[in-house]
Amino acid sequence: MTYISIPNPSLQVTKDHRLEIKDLPVEAPGPGEALVHIRATGICGSDVHFWKHGQIGELKVLGNCVLGHEACGEVIKVGEGVTNVSVGDRVAIEPQNACGECFLCLQGDYNLCQEVDFLSVYPCHGTMQRLRVTKAKNLFPIPDNMSFEEGALVEPLSVAYHGVENAQLQLGRGAMICGAGPIGLATLVLANASGAAPLVISDLSADRLAFAKKLIPRVQTYQIDLSKTPQENAAGIRKLFGPKEADAPPKVLECTGIETSIITGAYVVRRSGTLMVIGVGREIINNFPFMHLSFGEVDVKFINRYHQSWPAVIRLIGEGVVDVKKFVTHRFPLEKADEAIILSSDPKNGSIKVIIEDNYKIL
Amino acid sequence: MTYISIPNPSLQVTKDHRLEIKDLPVEAPGPGEALVHIRATGICGSDVHFWKHGQIGELKVLGNCVLGHEACGEVIKVGEGVTNVSVGDRVAIEPQNACGECFLCLQGDYNLCQEVDFLSVYPCHGTMQRLRVTKAKNLFPIPDNMSFEEGALVEPLSVAYHGVENAQLQLGRGAMICGAGPIGLATLVLANASGAAPLVISDLSADRLAFAKKLIPRVQTYQIDLSKTPQENAAGIRKLFGPKEADAPPKVLECTGIETSIITGAYVVRRSGTLMVIGVGREIINNFPFMHLSFGEVDVKFINRYHQSWPAVIRLIGEGVVDVKKFVTHRFPLEKADEAIILSSDPKNGSIKVIIEDNYKIL
Amino acid sequence: MTYISIPNPSLQVTKDHRLEIKDLPVEAPGPGEALVHIRATGICGSDVHFWKHGQIGELKVLGNCVLGHEACGEVIKVGEGVTNVSVGDRVAIEPQNACGECFLCLQGDYNLCQEVDFLSVYPCHGTMQRLRVTKAKNLFPIPDNMSFEEGALVEPLSVAYHGVENAQLQLGRGAMICGAGPIGLATLVLANASGAAPLVISDLSADRLAFAKKLIPRVQTYQIDLSKTPQENAAGIRKLFGPKEADAPPKVLECTGIETSIITGAYVVRRSGTLMVIGVGREIINNFPFMHLSFGEVDVKFINRYHQSWPAVIRLIGEGVVDVKKFVTHRFPLEKADEAIILSSDPKNGSIKVIIEDNYKIL
Amino acid sequence: MTYISIPNPSLQVTKDHRLEIKDLPVEAPGPGEALVHIRATGICGSDVHFWKHGQIGELKVLGNCVLGHEACGEVIKVGEGVTNVSVGDRVAIEPQNACGECFLCLQGDYNLCQEVDFLSVYPCHGTMQRLRVTKAKNLFPIPDNMSFEEGALVEPLSVAYHGVENAQLQLGRGAMICGAGPIGLATLVLANASGAAPLVISDLSADRLAFAKKLIPRVQTYQIDLSKTPQENAAGIRKLFGPKEADAPPKVLECTGIETSIITGAYVVRRSGTLMVIGVGREIINNFPFMHLSFGEVDVKFINRYHQSWPAVIRLIGEGVVDVKKFVTHRFPLEKADEAIILSSDPKNGSIKVIIEDNYKIL
Repeated sequence: MTYISIPNPSLQVTKDHRLEIKDLPVEAPGPGEALVHIRATGICGSDVHFWKHGQIGELKVLGNCVLGHEACGEVIKVGEGVTNVSVGDRVAIEPQNACGECFLCLQGDYNLCQEVDFLSVYPCHGTMQRLRVTKAKNLFPIPDNMSFEEGALVEPLSVAYHGVENAQLQLGRGAMICGAGPIGLATLVLANASGAAPLVISDLSADRLAFAKKLIPRVQTYQIDLSKTPQENAAGIRKLFGPKEADAPPKVLECTGIETSIITGAYVVRRSGTLMVIGVGREIINNFPFMHLSFGEVDVKFINRYHQSWPAVIRLIGEGVVDVKKFVTHRFPLEKADEAIILSSDPKNGSIKVIIEDNYKIL
Repeated sequence: MTYISIPNPSLQVTKDHRLEIKDLPVEAPGPGEALVHIRATGICGSDVHFWKHGQIGELKVLGNCVLGHEACGEVIKVGEGVTNVSVGDRVAIEPQNACGECFLCLQGDYNLCQEVDFLSVYPCHGTMQRLRVTKAKNLFPIPDNMSFEEGALVEPLSVAYHGVENAQLQLGRGAMICGAGPIGLATLVLANASGAAPLVISDLSADRLAFAKKLIPRVQTYQIDLSKTPQENAAGIRKLFGPKEADAPPKVLECTGIETSIITGAYVVRRSGTLMVIGVGREIINNFPFMHLSFGEVDVKFINRYHQSWPAVIRLIGEGVVDVKKFVTHRFPLEKADEAIILSSDPKNGSIKVIIEDNYKIL
Repeated sequence: MTYISIPNPSLQVTKDHRLEIKDLPVEAPGPGEALVHIRATGICGSDVHFWKHGQIGELKVLGNCVLGHEACGEVIKVGEGVTNVSVGDRVAIEPQNACGECFLCLQGDYNLCQEVDFLSVYPCHGTMQRLRVTKAKNLFPIPDNMSFEEGALVEPLSVAYHGVENAQLQLGRGAMICGAGPIGLATLVLANASGAAPLVISDLSADRLAFAKKLIPRVQTYQIDLSKTPQENAAGIRKLFGPKEADAPPKVLECTGIETSIITGAYVVRRSGTLMVIGVGREIINNFPFMHLSFGEVDVKFINRYHQSWPAVIRLIGEGVVDVKKFVTHRFPLEKADEAIILSSDPKNGSIKVIIEDNYKIL
Repeated sequence: MTYISIPNPSLQVTKDHRLEIKDLPVEAPGPGEALVHIRATGICGSDVHFWKHGQIGELKVLGNCVLGHEACGEVIKVGEGVTNVSVGDRVAIEPQNACGECFLCLQGDYNLCQEVDFLSVYPCHGTMQRLRVTKAKNLFPIPDNMSFEEGALVEPLSVAYHGVENAQLQLGRGAMICGAGPIGLATLVLANASGAAPLVISDLSADRLAFAKKLIPRVQTYQIDLSKTPQENAAGIRKLFGPKEADAPPKVLECTGIETSIITGAYVVRRSGTLMVIGVGREIINNFPFMHLSFGEVDVKFINRYHQSWPAVIRLIGEGVVDVKKFVTHRFPLEKADEAIILSSDPKNGSIKVIIEDNYKIL
């Protein structure tokens, strides 16, 4: 039995690492909730990871779970007491629900709450489905000039936003971004919007660097040479900034999670600077150059998701301060969500952001 | 007797509030110094103030003093031990020399040093002359794509830069700028480059607001109505940001120094925000709304000049992140510097920045 | 009809500025709530102010309201789902309830929430009664070595705590406290515990200064001379710190709310320092020395109550890092709460903190 | 030929790792300099390291070099233009001289200056000699109630001070100190003075922990068990703070430089906290738990020496806020400086701080 008689296909990952497209019952929104027609969901590396590996750190897929958390949609119905959104609103979705009472929530770090529910992390279903009930307070109206897929991009942009805000990029001072994948590119776009200068981005792939250059023409690019040591690559990157320690960037934003890249970043950042680790891929890092970081009093900072970023990122896109349209390289209808994630998992096809869309007529 | 046989006309203010154009001997650069051919000097409100009132706070014109501190030029000769600039370099000049040993210098606040020498503050001659010796460390090479007058604009941009950096403008979060004079406009340009959004600027003059809008199309403008109370004007400004407290700007940058404008800013800034006072015009302020600021825990911050801003501002202009060419509305040759300052002192002619140039062939 | 058959006397202020001791029905604790036997409530200046003036700023006594918000008691019964406290726990009470959903709550500034309920602010009854239901999350167990009246002092200490934390007092660097009333003394005690040095406190009253000196022997005292200007008093205070600008305190904590004291503080604080306004008494301040604050880039900061301070202050008292026993100069039984507040309102009797206690046997 | 006819014995380390006591010529103080009779020098681990290993990182002993940089003495003569000290002043010595012109010096991080001269780092002679000329600005008068050996302790206290100030310890919030050697104990003393609570210190040695407890009775101690993993030791330490994440310390101060201790600290610090690395012993660290630090957004910070700490630390000792007398466990006359360093290098004798004193009568 379902709340409304509309089919609700969903892309689910199973405990035994398979993908299934299954119809899911639609729930009615309770007090403070809203029923949202998900119009666009972007595919994140973590969706692929949950599918292929069944876990990230301690987060494990112990049963069927709908994937997807980069989402935007349309409000179909609101529950009792909801005032911040109305039926028909086009809304981007912040996919985390924190407890609101622990010391972390009380101090503004609700993203660090240990009781958080996160959409697409088992047992909390994600957004690769047509109709999902969410807390209304997690819904943020987007302006008319923003598309649903731009609304879905607010989530990965929020990761980069949190990295950029915590790194405290400075107007007219240098920043280096390690990695030109989706998060690295999102970081680049926001670093550019922050007025950090000069900007350099690195990657293994010349294609990705060319894509970065097309996005932000003033960025300089550096192709990592794996036959070189991190110090050597760092020296090459520093050359792009200028000959002196003063020219080296005070901020390095690491978006790969790869050990050699992290170490390279540690040698790029200038004395008294910040190495901001945005993407973490492995439990531990070896060969972390403590003595070097210590001589320069480099701060090493980490982020875990984001907080209060939706209003800011929506405004940046809505006012045209940043343009993220080029991020979307592929689109699939909801019914072919499995194909979308398969394509997204293949590093060879040059995809940046793959979007699952749903244009089913409801309202 | 003079160091080289080139005439060195200078615009001097006298103790009895007159302007004189007089030839000044040229000195030889000592160790660590350089002789600079000043190619462009912008006129600042303080130049006019020293001329008309003979003092600013405790800084008094006790004898003849060359005006001008917004300057850019060409290195003609370097003294012993100078390595950061060479003959022929085009350089912007940071016009302050601090003691380097007091606690303020040691903590990075050399602009607050109480032993500072500032160009154009008696008895330290300014830059409205052809040839001036300066400390080489105060000279910052500008790239080929920057003009001398853009180099001169680095100084007023630095004031705004220091305000913007200390206010810690935030990407995608609102900022309000009070006043569309030269410092307000410089602040607007940098707030825009910082990605603060939305942006609103206020002024009494519709013409200045139109100029602001031409500079930065995404800014919204608010014309102050002096028949209204500060609270009423603040309410009007807040309407441009949005209906809720959350929409109000976390940062207000006050660039007028006028009491009613400061109070208006205090009512515009949102709870937990910052009122950054960039321009101070009077010894004291009355009617400062302490209870209101206290309920909202608003930080009130002030700036006094700038520190380490030349590299950043030069980079912003050089990389094209900001465009300040439109600031210059009038140009005068050095020999007519007195006419330049007279024009600049007249509020009716719509001047923003008046530049005194010198194209005498030396090198 | 009442929840349990125990008399519940309460001290209420009426709309027409009278005090009444009236029995109040006792409610049952709902989910997430607890019923607390209030064992001690301290009297705050705001209790007296509400009684005598019927309002503070926009907060108005529009009907009968129980006074008191500096409270500590014993848990009598807990509602459904309460896990942080148990029956019999001795608990200090944080008297504010914020909405938990606005941007201020989400960023950790729940004390600035505009939907906050505050105990003793109409229509929210205060703690000058025997039995009051509160949210369980606002209850913080105190250790055995802390008395109920020390538990009640956590509230005024929290005001000072929030001022001290936001002013970022520094180990081995000077701090000046203006005012030796209850908040000034609490600030002194915490500044001492923070290792700020040297410490100076000022007041009009030699008795209060002597009391301060007894509390914290290493503090130096300065008696304000009202026949002198703020600059002259400031010069006298600065002399206690030492002859140079470097000796002046980087932090001044203003705890009087009086205009001349605030201005004095503005002249005491050293360049690049912070003037922290802890107590605000009047809507506006005149003669605020903007030029002076601007030359020195002094930050002016304000606080409004506190957040997340209960655990810290309880630990400081419990571990013996601070000793606040001497604050309590007078004690009254609950039945004579009106006499307590009358005494407290009289500046001549030398009271610091007056406590209303209740030793009625319940558990 | 020497400046004054007083023997000037010095302890020198040679290029080939030997210790020599040799007489050194005494120089005359030039402009801005002072000749100091070194009355006490403490022995630092780096002195032992230079002797035994001939280098620390890239700092190499390429020729004879006088050891010692924790020093205090008496001014014997001042050079031209010296105004901050006079003959007869008892002074603690800050042993670093930075360039004063690089971006690091200008931003207040002169300790990070890459042109710094540091006493006892080849080729800059240290203070284990009788008479040494130093820059007058590096001399800080100590009050009469401070001994010369307390003056010498200002240097190691400064290392801890810089760690504590950059970690921003918080009044009433927990702090954990890893390591009870001289720097760990100095950090403990300052953490205590900062009002951080609760305090826990760890070490391998029960004796050192007992010493810590004697110094600061309110600290809790944890003896590291090397048969356990870092996570297990971290769990044991966390138990001392309390059962919940909220109880864990927001600040961990690592003072051992040992990999397992650093990792333990990473598991002790609570979410959103800071791991402050004060002591670094090795070029690189393996097994650094990036995923864990990332989930909790833990800041990892490093320090390199100190800046502007002498006035603060002298005040703390002089005002009796901290007591460091117990640090000194052994004393040797200058003529036996080699015996002092040999004793200091032996971990078995329970020495904390070994002082080389000189009571030769000059003034």
